[in-house]
Amino acid sequence: MKRTTRRSDCPINFALQAFGDAWSLLVMRDLMFTDRRTYTDFLGAEESIATNILATRLKQLQAQGLIRRRGTGRGASYGLTEKGLDLLPAMLELISWSARHDRHTAAPPEFVARIRARRKPFLNQLREDLRRRHGL
Amino acid sequence: MKRTTRRSDCPINFALQAFGDAWSLLVMRDLMFTDRRTYTDFLGAEESIATNILATRLKQLQAQGLIRRRGTGRGASYGLTEKGLDLLPAMLELISWSARHDRHTAAPPEFVARIRARRKPFLNQLREDLRRRHGL
Repeated sequence: MKRTTRRSDCPINFALQAFGDAWSLLVMRDLMFTDRRTYTDFLGAEESIATNILATRLKQLQAQGLIRRRGTGRGASYGLTEKGLDLLPAMLELISWSARHDRHTAAPPEFVARIRARRKPFLNQLREDLRRRHGL
Repeated sequence: MKRTTRRSDCPINFALQAFGDAWSLLVMRDLMFTDRRTYTDFLGAEESIATNILATRLKQLQAQGLIRRRGTGRGASYGLTEKGLDLLPAMLELISWSARHDRHTAAPPEFVARIRARRKPFLNQLREDLRRRHGL
């Protein structure tokens, strides 16, 4: 496996080198908050990722241990690993931030309200739900 | 000001289009967790950002309202806006995630411990400290 040279030991830099690409993070979003699990599913997301970019990002996310693949070829489906699932709190904060600063946000208001008002129990509930759905 | 076309109204996509570039996020890190404030300061960070990339990213972050500039030319210094400061919780979660999954992390253990054990008061303290330092 090709290892990326690390630019520094800074924790923010580490996170960015693991999944800091915008398209990678959208794949993580799909796995956390939608039912998209296959190559074809990811291609169908609203942001229209290109096939070659998607293929590269899936490989990188696997190499970083953030996602795992089941099956091969066209039948392959992807799921979160524990390491990937651990990004949930950061994703929730990004959702909360966007909901605050984007007038056109598609974030459901009741979801955002629960992140803000009942963060810890909501986080635990989402985490357990994802564990079950991803077979962790 | 040139507006980026939005790919969707998804809140994660909004966040990524605002600062999803790895180098942009390192500039935000510098403004939050170091004393780097000038073009020359940012160039001096460990990750060795290229001058042309830095110039582009600073302009984008300003256009997105995440940072503001004081002064011009070589004397210019940059600071967080309220919108930029609002990214603090997401940044703390990224630090916590990296500290958990990176054996070589440079994240100070006591800093990480405070994020995890006393999140809310620590967050408020950091936010007030940043407000003061950035004149907000």
